[in-house]
Amino acid sequence: MKRIHRFQRPPRILSAAAAGGKEERRGPHGEEFDFCSPNDLFGVQTWEMAEGEMARASLSFALKKAGIRAEEISLLFAGDLQNQCVASSEGLCSVGAPFVGVFGACSTMAEGLALASLAISGSSQVSLAAVLTSSHNCAAERQFRTPLEYGSQRTPTAQWTATAAGSVLLTGEENPKKTGWGPGGRCPQISEVVFGKMVNGGITDAANMGAAMAPSAADTLLTYFRESGRTPADFELILTGDLGKEGSALLSLLMAREGFYLQEKHVDCGMLLYDPEKQDVHCGASGCGCIASLLSCHFLPRMARGELHNILAVGTGALMNPSLIQQGGSITGIAHLVHLEVR
Amino acid sequence: MKRIHRFQRPPRILSAAAAGGKEERRGPHGEEFDFCSPNDLFGVQTWEMAEGEMARASLSFALKKAGIRAEEISLLFAGDLQNQCVASSEGLCSVGAPFVGVFGACSTMAEGLALASLAISGSSQVSLAAVLTSSHNCAAERQFRTPLEYGSQRTPTAQWTATAAGSVLLTGEENPKKTGWGPGGRCPQISEVVFGKMVNGGITDAANMGAAMAPSAADTLLTYFRESGRTPADFELILTGDLGKEGSALLSLLMAREGFYLQEKHVDCGMLLYDPEKQDVHCGASGCGCIASLLSCHFLPRMARGELHNILAVGTGALMNPSLIQQGGSITGIAHLVHLEVR
Repeated sequence: MKRIHRFQRPPRILSAAAAGGKEERRGPHGEEFDFCSPNDLFGVQTWEMAEGEMARASLSFALKKAGIRAEEISLLFAGDLQNQCVASSEGLCSVGAPFVGVFGACSTMAEGLALASLAISGSSQVSLAAVLTSSHNCAAERQFRTPLEYGSQRTPTAQWTATAAGSVLLTGEENPKKTGWGPGGRCPQISEVVFGKMVNGGITDAANMGAAMAPSAADTLLTYFRESGRTPADFELILTGDLGKEGSALLSLLMAREGFYLQEKHVDCGMLLYDPEKQDVHCGASGCGCIASLLSCHFLPRMARGELHNILAVGTGALMNPSLIQQGGSITGIAHLVHLEVR
Repeated sequence: MKRIHRFQRPPRILSAAAAGGKEERRGPHGEEFDFCSPNDLFGVQTWEMAEGEMARASLSFALKKAGIRAEEISLLFAGDLQNQCVASSEGLCSVGAPFVGVFGACSTMAEGLALASLAISGSSQVSLAAVLTSSHNCAAERQFRTPLEYGSQRTPTAQWTATAAGSVLLTGEENPKKTGWGPGGRCPQISEVVFGKMVNGGITDAANMGAAMAPSAADTLLTYFRESGRTPADFELILTGDLGKEGSALLSLLMAREGFYLQEKHVDCGMLLYDPEKQDVHCGASGCGCIASLLSCHFLPRMARGELHNILAVGTGALMNPSLIQQGGSITGIAHLVHLEVR
């Protein structure tokens, strides 16, 4: 069975934007974010609702940059890490767009981009799709591990859930009139997608997401390389979501064992969002918002400016459920792949 | 903006199956279920894992009836009510299919059918899509409200979360060779879909899901009738997911106010699953598994046998999050519509 979905008329990305918190502003890409909240609260009272506000802010910026109104969105794909994906429903209800809730943990941005691409190809009604995801450090930590106020010590393999959101707008038009890329900016296209299979490597440690996700990232990348006949050398970058230091090392090993050497082509967003010298985040960043924000404020703009032309973006998710972990279960990983090109 | 997605080559439903628990077996449609667990545990130790087993069982039966192997699934759409949709990931990891996690609370089956239809239309690679969702009374009650052992008294508007799962298999082939409908059985097709908008009617009572969902069901149905120019009289049935007694009455009122009289055309799965005389479930059934199981074991088979030809199925979801309710928030509803026909 063929696993790569290749688009005859690839959807175009016409705008993107990112919002973040105060740690994200302090990071190496802080200045590229469209908006950062100085206290992570985005003007509301709780971390959970703050994430919703941040999600909506990122969408508003993506729309504004392209001069598009929210009413023009044909389908809005969104999901997040909170139980029942409530940041998306709370934050986006007032947008008033037809809503498709998705859940792929930290693979949600890649899953949403892949689904939106299929939807644009499958229905002439989908003229504008928006894909959005978010995570909030304070909301996620108290839900998945312990409330920050508890002051629990973090283990060496722990990652720091990003307070960040990213929004991407897609269209089926080959040359969209309105874009958010500025004069001369070129719209990146989604040429191919691969939906990942779930892989469970038996990891039971909620503070080692990297190891839980690495096998699924390897599975999806191997599927893509073998079916397409391509190798890492054919791409400028192979971007992963939030494997962090531990998970990235494991991915390299798993790929090398099968004869694919990622080497310097591999860049993990979890290792880019914070400065390891100045920000004590152990194994790096994690969370849906990690790859979503860096794609939106860094990689897609670089493609639009012509600095990058051909990359693979692999969203990696740990489908971790606290009840199941308490019952002795392990963490299942999943990774979806999106092939981005500027031609 | 047009909201109805109409398919040039409508996807066909080639098989479906349902699994349930002991209360579901006692209900009016109990004998139609493919499998029911006499103790709701499906051979495992916890309610959460039991839901995963039930989900996989329903998929296995749908595949078996059509003589199809799990390896033939091109895309598996699934989601459930548990946090991080863990019943789906836990239950379906071993199926080994490319996995698309969706979350629409109890609208998940309709959302999945709609997405799978777009995917089949959008990629020639999707030869077989599976859509699956589940809910488990004991897992859901302790997550959303209180553990059953607490013995909390149920209010008059409360509904009973169904212990049930339904799986549906779809293909883009016009005349699939292998089906689960038996000799002479005709494959129902998905002619049109509408993705709903989120609607928040301000309901803050976690024991009144019907009222939280009714406004979104009305919004989606009104959108469909106005855009298509059709009326309730054009359909044999207008099926809703799990509005229950309270929500169904509200839907009728909301529709009548706009000049659309549902009357006896409206059938709510929440009011069919249990016998109100013998089973004390207050306002009826709820949960993802409610419409999923009754579609799979009752309505789709009736269509395949030629007893029904033209129905609307509206999955209704309450995107309810306990943390948000505790913080004074209200419950957002969503409803997705699928137009099913046999020709």
